[in-house]
Amino acid sequence: MKITRLEHCESFPVQMDGAVGASRQLPIGQADGAPNFSIRVFTLNPGGHTPHHIHASEHLNYILQGSGEVMAGDTPRDVSAGDYILVPPEQKHQYRNTGSEPLVFMCMVPVAYE
Amino acid sequence: MKITRLEHCESFPVQMDGAVGASRQLPIGQADGAPNFSIRVFTLNPGGHTPHHIHASEHLNYILQGSGEVMAGDTPRDVSAGDYILVPPEQKHQYRNTGSEPLVFMCMVPVAYE
Repeated sequence: MKITRLEHCESFPVQMDGAVGASRQLPIGQADGAPNFSIRVFTLNPGGHTPHHIHASEHLNYILQGSGEVMAGDTPRDVSAGDYILVPPEQKHQYRNTGSEPLVFMCMVPVAYE
Repeated sequence: MKITRLEHCESFPVQMDGAVGASRQLPIGQADGAPNFSIRVFTLNPGGHTPHHIHASEHLNYILQGSGEVMAGDTPRDVSAGDYILVPPEQKHQYRNTGSEPLVFMCMVPVAYE
């Protein structure tokens, strides 16, 4: 059994094309023995965003802190701390921090997409 | 894309043998189109607990509120809001609310175990 907290998880800048002001932590992943899916945590600085992209895997998200938008295709929808979001497979999406504090959210994915 | 919050998710008492003072919500599940895994949220009243049991599926947990213990086999480990926990497959486990406020935690599982 692994028990950890965000402050103990190393943070790495997101290097993907289309990502701005984004960093990533991995509290629970394949290296910990997670057999099916992983918990990643992304932090977006104010004005930051993830890529506006599409892929075969789903995201299950939970907003830990802050507020912003998630693009559902080309339609922005407001999100804020306490929201649960399902981004289905093959839906174009993007998280954008439109607020003045960090936008921090959990992003669960199958381990193959960790 | 589904976006929801706990206050919009119906709460059901947990009827399993060995569960006391426990309720369950399902912000994201198979019925929403989640293809691989689901987000369940459990609330344990003070003194409440989940079954002390073992099964083939893992749990990925995040403590939203409160404090308590998770049994790793027969060893209690303290948990509190902000903790991420991996309960691996086939590890005996139980969540117990040893505090004075509700213990609320996310519990991600493969959809087959939703």
